[in-house]
Amino acid sequence: MNNRLGNIFTVTSFGESHGKAIGAVIDGMPAGVPINIDEVQIWVNQRKTGQQIYTSARTEADEVQIISGVKNGISLGTPIAIIIENKDAKSADYNALENVYRPNHADYTTEVKYGIRDHNGGGRSSIRITAAMVAAGAIAYTALQQLIPSISVLSYVQAIGKVGMDTEQLITYSKNEIFTASNRCPVPLINRQMDELIKETQLQKNTLGGKIYTQINNLPAGIGEPIFNKLQAVLAHAMLSINTVKAFEYGSGKQASEQTGQQHNDAFELKNNIVSTTTNNSGGIQGGISNGMPIYFTTAFKPISSIGLEQHTLNQKGDNIAISIAGRHDVCAVPRAIPIVNAYTAIVLLDMVLQNRISRI
Amino acid sequence: MNNRLGNIFTVTSFGESHGKAIGAVIDGMPAGVPINIDEVQIWVNQRKTGQQIYTSARTEADEVQIISGVKNGISLGTPIAIIIENKDAKSADYNALENVYRPNHADYTTEVKYGIRDHNGGGRSSIRITAAMVAAGAIAYTALQQLIPSISVLSYVQAIGKVGMDTEQLITYSKNEIFTASNRCPVPLINRQMDELIKETQLQKNTLGGKIYTQINNLPAGIGEPIFNKLQAVLAHAMLSINTVKAFEYGSGKQASEQTGQQHNDAFELKNNIVSTTTNNSGGIQGGISNGMPIYFTTAFKPISSIGLEQHTLNQKGDNIAISIAGRHDVCAVPRAIPIVNAYTAIVLLDMVLQNRISRI
Amino acid sequence: MNNRLGNIFTVTSFGESHGKAIGAVIDGMPAGVPINIDEVQIWVNQRKTGQQIYTSARTEADEVQIISGVKNGISLGTPIAIIIENKDAKSADYNALENVYRPNHADYTTEVKYGIRDHNGGGRSSIRITAAMVAAGAIAYTALQQLIPSISVLSYVQAIGKVGMDTEQLITYSKNEIFTASNRCPVPLINRQMDELIKETQLQKNTLGGKIYTQINNLPAGIGEPIFNKLQAVLAHAMLSINTVKAFEYGSGKQASEQTGQQHNDAFELKNNIVSTTTNNSGGIQGGISNGMPIYFTTAFKPISSIGLEQHTLNQKGDNIAISIAGRHDVCAVPRAIPIVNAYTAIVLLDMVLQNRISRI
Amino acid sequence: MNNRLGNIFTVTSFGESHGKAIGAVIDGMPAGVPINIDEVQIWVNQRKTGQQIYTSARTEADEVQIISGVKNGISLGTPIAIIIENKDAKSADYNALENVYRPNHADYTTEVKYGIRDHNGGGRSSIRITAAMVAAGAIAYTALQQLIPSISVLSYVQAIGKVGMDTEQLITYSKNEIFTASNRCPVPLINRQMDELIKETQLQKNTLGGKIYTQINNLPAGIGEPIFNKLQAVLAHAMLSINTVKAFEYGSGKQASEQTGQQHNDAFELKNNIVSTTTNNSGGIQGGISNGMPIYFTTAFKPISSIGLEQHTLNQKGDNIAISIAGRHDVCAVPRAIPIVNAYTAIVLLDMVLQNRISRI
Repeated sequence: MNNRLGNIFTVTSFGESHGKAIGAVIDGMPAGVPINIDEVQIWVNQRKTGQQIYTSARTEADEVQIISGVKNGISLGTPIAIIIENKDAKSADYNALENVYRPNHADYTTEVKYGIRDHNGGGRSSIRITAAMVAAGAIAYTALQQLIPSISVLSYVQAIGKVGMDTEQLITYSKNEIFTASNRCPVPLINRQMDELIKETQLQKNTLGGKIYTQINNLPAGIGEPIFNKLQAVLAHAMLSINTVKAFEYGSGKQASEQTGQQHNDAFELKNNIVSTTTNNSGGIQGGISNGMPIYFTTAFKPISSIGLEQHTLNQKGDNIAISIAGRHDVCAVPRAIPIVNAYTAIVLLDMVLQNRISRI
Repeated sequence: MNNRLGNIFTVTSFGESHGKAIGAVIDGMPAGVPINIDEVQIWVNQRKTGQQIYTSARTEADEVQIISGVKNGISLGTPIAIIIENKDAKSADYNALENVYRPNHADYTTEVKYGIRDHNGGGRSSIRITAAMVAAGAIAYTALQQLIPSISVLSYVQAIGKVGMDTEQLITYSKNEIFTASNRCPVPLINRQMDELIKETQLQKNTLGGKIYTQINNLPAGIGEPIFNKLQAVLAHAMLSINTVKAFEYGSGKQASEQTGQQHNDAFELKNNIVSTTTNNSGGIQGGISNGMPIYFTTAFKPISSIGLEQHTLNQKGDNIAISIAGRHDVCAVPRAIPIVNAYTAIVLLDMVLQNRISRI
Repeated sequence: MNNRLGNIFTVTSFGESHGKAIGAVIDGMPAGVPINIDEVQIWVNQRKTGQQIYTSARTEADEVQIISGVKNGISLGTPIAIIIENKDAKSADYNALENVYRPNHADYTTEVKYGIRDHNGGGRSSIRITAAMVAAGAIAYTALQQLIPSISVLSYVQAIGKVGMDTEQLITYSKNEIFTASNRCPVPLINRQMDELIKETQLQKNTLGGKIYTQINNLPAGIGEPIFNKLQAVLAHAMLSINTVKAFEYGSGKQASEQTGQQHNDAFELKNNIVSTTTNNSGGIQGGISNGMPIYFTTAFKPISSIGLEQHTLNQKGDNIAISIAGRHDVCAVPRAIPIVNAYTAIVLLDMVLQNRISRI
Repeated sequence: MNNRLGNIFTVTSFGESHGKAIGAVIDGMPAGVPINIDEVQIWVNQRKTGQQIYTSARTEADEVQIISGVKNGISLGTPIAIIIENKDAKSADYNALENVYRPNHADYTTEVKYGIRDHNGGGRSSIRITAAMVAAGAIAYTALQQLIPSISVLSYVQAIGKVGMDTEQLITYSKNEIFTASNRCPVPLINRQMDELIKETQLQKNTLGGKIYTQINNLPAGIGEPIFNKLQAVLAHAMLSINTVKAFEYGSGKQASEQTGQQHNDAFELKNNIVSTTTNNSGGIQGGISNGMPIYFTTAFKPISSIGLEQHTLNQKGDNIAISIAGRHDVCAVPRAIPIVNAYTAIVLLDMVLQNRISRI
């Protein structure tokens, strides 16, 4: 169950970075949802390398195959299995690392836990395995839109390293504004500054982290399952499951701790006869349940651990050694994490929306 | 299952703030653990009001009763049911609020979701119901210490409003230093400044939030269950389940997003023949699994929503109304949240430590 | 999770036979269900001793207390905790048995498993702990009837020892016919023969088993969750969870193995414009999903293990000893198991009916 | 979660009979287990057609592919995905059945539940999808044998139709005695009588059911998780999940209901200094926990529903129609169910054995 996301709409992940394939199985898919494989492929492609100016050289076709659960483009209500073959798996690149504990990777902890590890491409701890989860998320999103046609989940890169958007710039942007930007930052000037920063950091053989801002519009009030599957708690769980995420905050977030009650409280009012709030420090969630206002949260990513610069570390025998990690690695993975954040959010939302069907007799 | 914390060591919560009692049932308790009811009571008392200078006037005995699962002070391996009666439940205080949506409370969302709500004391959305979870957490902590005698989970108040400790002050303090401080801040000067701030805010009929810093020492390497029950993910889930938490970060946290790979990476080294890292930006977790270094995280709390100042809001009919919330309310709940954070952390850790028993044949 | 019945409508059991209380927590109760505590008490009373001619002398009030989740007689959608205090727990009766392994009891296996056991009244392995589950089942049944007003779950005693009803007598009887019979067998002649058999067996200090026949009428087609929560599989799981059940069969059951396909198959036909089958060897379930026909199954119970006759066994030290179990014990527990079978069936059905809400978009 | 078997060692099934492939994902596999793909293939082959004298003409290679979770023949502790391609899927055979409800199939109930169904080969309700579960069971069995080298799970055909073994013949047979018999009945005379019966029934275009007897030797005492995952309850759940199973009984089974306590009780005694029982009506399970004696149970299967004889039924429009099912179908599927019963038993046992690791501190 540890490789499963969701409670009643569940997605179980499988696969290693350099094994035969990676994949996911959806159990709990409602019947009757039109599944557009092209749309699913678009989501998966958004996660691929080669879209930024300086990216990892691994070029995977990442072709999504749906093995079961769909007939004539409609979900059957049975499990949907998704397979993505690993075709460009150059294990030879990793031979030198077989006995080395790369700093800030999962090499050492995996070995301690399981007594065995697949060192090729990081095995199971590689970000690559999220590709199949992204496909599952695309399917979840389709189902969500069937249920709530006006819903949208939009994420964009708020910051890369120290280059980032101001708080007042954190508004709703169009999908187009986001995905035409090389770094998925919808403010062109800042996106260009990010390009510069990445270029410079690449020359230094160094890497960068960043932040992603996510906004959910038009989720109806009433979604979320207190007291241990509050909407913010399951979102945080999902986000902290992404490999390099170090922090999650929703609504006014960390800053809320410095506000007084008077500053923070969102007054209720009727807007077009709908219960709304004048401000939205709550981030659209009260008591773990959506209140109908936009939901927003920020996820912070650490820099990529594989740097070209020399680092000191240990090997299995306990010898001090120096390594410089060659291989195929990005400078900054944050833009590629956009579809992952969207996918995990869609999975969580669909799970919560379906669960809400049983909250009343 | 939505009122359950944990996967194989599970705690299910029940009870409303002003019902007959609140409680919790532990399912998955290993047999053979000595349970000291006095120690459990100490944890629960740490959550009670009346310990800070200006606190809620609700005075509950909060006497913990263990109904099952323990015989002659030893756990039987059967479910442990915990009951805490509600004795000082003054529902009359809440009559005026029956049809009102208090700002930033769960009143409106609960009503939308369930079509019915218990307005007394916030019903199920009250922080009061965590008392029984704290008792369960104390029991989990006892089991943890049986398994790992040197382990410790220590939390303290890092900040109240804008008054807080500096980063370099975030170190290990003794239980005594923490619990003798009125605000659970172990730096006396800052604790006194917090007293001042609370006093002042109380006069303004306003409220405050803050931050709690938690450190886990001596958890062995190998604990955590990728890829969806990574240690940081289950900790985040647990923390975001606490009523007023708005943000979670671990290790270098949000700040990691501004570091380069070179700045962030923690070099491995042998220290007393144990694999360690020179720095600890990882916060003791790599790839979702503990690496043997101290684990640390920060949880940010919004200010209490019930303020004495006049606020504008709606009632059930949709009328604009003005309210000033009287009742019995704290100025700042953060110090009282220390045992909750500790309890949820202990539950999560025991669950993960037990699960690790099945990671190898 | 091992003390939990149900997947999304879940009931977690707690308590030992001679502890302070036994109980159950419902998590997943839909909001808006009227809960009639008197009706719940009726179900629990049906499980009490003292209703047959020769029964256990333990006289428990078995007063059901609902601690949470209900306000003004309506379910809130929050967990419902049920408590039944143990008032007539005469632990002294069991002192002689502290170190003895009673034949066919759970004494030996409990001790091997947990290394500790509560010998009083069988501790957790006592049938007594089902009382709180029966209360939960009564609540589940109320919810079921809200959803499907015409539904009925009726169980009766089909056989005690070798005295039983013929196959053609296995039809629908009224609640009244069942509960006015001392042995819950609705055919008066057979019920009297059962009385005779019990009387005779009591004089021999011996005990009896029997069979219960259960029929579910008016469950709509479409209920059941293949392929691992097929309706028959979850019913079997629930029935085999009852302490002394040794066998479960549904539809034509064990006998189906001797039929040919031609004999067994149920032809489809339209009856009053409803899809029906001419025969019902399927027992109302096809492919794990209800087909709208009556569902029926039989559960076989072994005789009570505590007999007054002398038996040979071992004590903890491994000594061969002879025991005759005094205490308060029934001759035949099967009639008292009727509400347990009904309760577990209701819990399973409600769980399945609610899950079916998410089978389609 | 409805397509998952197991609680902490879990196997999730996917695939339709005539889709691209069927498969299963193991989540919770302990690391360090040697996986022999040839041995896995042997189990899967035991389920294939063409081994009895008169069997279905579908000839699938059923080649098992392990996609993940194993490296150099050793389990990594990560999910193991199993794929078996569908190569001989002749959907054309089923075109005539697209709108017909075959008697005693899942056609009608699937359509009612999901509003859509894959009629080819029965889609998800086909017994074919158990092939991948059998592969998972073979892996579970390997892990079990690593933990308990002397353990064995042996099943054989006890009866086909009315031709069956006597009670005293239900003893332990060797794997060889079982698998060299065309009908998996280890008593040659009875196996030959079964051949005769099948031959005769085939000529009549009719079908047969039967019974499988399963015995588990050398499971240590202490395995099973009361009160809702008792060993017999999870075994029953697993067995009733097999497509055509109608009844489950363990130990003295249904017959126990006719015994007195004195007849049924198994006296404890020391045998070679091991706690044993003189008789074994308990079937090796007491209080839901294994007691170290052999565990045995019987599973009854209905006849195959697809018969060549003319039957009356309905189509989607509600017209009365007559059908004779051609296609490729067995006369009796019971012998082919042996590996399914073994596989599900192995999955349940490994799950329970692993869970027992956390029953004590």
